[in-house]
Amino acid sequence: ARPRVGYFYTGKTGAQLLTDKIKKIQVQDYQSIPVVVNENVSVYDAICTMFLEDVGTLFVVDEQSLLVGVLSRKDLLRASIGKQELTSIPVHIIMTRMPNITYCHREELLIDIAQVLIEKQIDAIPVVKKVDAGLEVVGRVTKTNITKLLVALAHDEVL
Amino acid sequence: ARPRVGYFYTGKTGAQLLTDKIKKIQVQDYQSIPVVVNENVSVYDAICTMFLEDVGTLFVVDEQSLLVGVLSRKDLLRASIGKQELTSIPVHIIMTRMPNITYCHREELLIDIAQVLIEKQIDAIPVVKKVDAGLEVVGRVTKTNITKLLVALAHDEVL
Repeated sequence: ARPRVGYFYTGKTGAQLLTDKIKKIQVQDYQSIPVVVNENVSVYDAICTMFLEDVGTLFVVDEQSLLVGVLSRKDLLRASIGKQELTSIPVHIIMTRMPNITYCHREELLIDIAQVLIEKQIDAIPVVKKVDAGLEVVGRVTKTNITKLLVALAHDEVL
Repeated sequence: ARPRVGYFYTGKTGAQLLTDKIKKIQVQDYQSIPVVVNENVSVYDAICTMFLEDVGTLFVVDEQSLLVGVLSRKDLLRASIGKQELTSIPVHIIMTRMPNITYCHREELLIDIAQVLIEKQIDAIPVVKKVDAGLEVVGRVTKTNITKLLVALAHDEVL
């Protein structure tokens, strides 16, 4: 068979082109809507919110809507096998709290956040916006977002 | 600056090279070790196993070690807020059971499984091997595996 005609100049290998492509994708291109609960709601209500909204992680905010904690399914499952009444424990007792929360900003590279999810063994990271009083939650990045990116890349649907 | 010398023949764009690369990766290249429990263990014990092994999904097997069900954190959390005593309910009461389980084989493409995880909104898929009597569980594919693949691709560590 006659070879297909087509030369193009590039100093780059296919792998580098891929890397370049991935390194253009920001958090805001693939983030999801965050689901938040107030720090004073009960663990029981938080579990119900998690089911209703069908998410694996809830972000906890104070009266000013500023980020104060994170609740994973694992945190809620741990609480639910304890001896206490779930309707009487507020989530701020069991949540992971600031400053132990890993968060990110909209302009960061999604691939860097993918690496953080792996290294810290967490399921979701809040996307935040800095305001005078603290951090506002504006998004959510999960391994689902990263999986969607890979599927889109494979189908050549990115950029 | 003098351009780097380097032409190479290809009928393909960078995106196609990437797609080709992703389409060589099989489930067995990125799968994890499965964590299984017997169908007669209690929900309480299954939750403890999930914490001890630090996984998000357990696979349930019968006395012959054949796959009969799947337990997600969501399934266990739902059971744990119910009225029943967790130590007295066996997991086969609450698990997702065959034939409603999505599974895959070692030789399938990881990217196809990534798509299934997204479409079916599930966290993990058992990797199985067909035997005369049914299906043996030989692995586990999760969104964590897919996220690791993307990070490896970005760092040009694949193939």
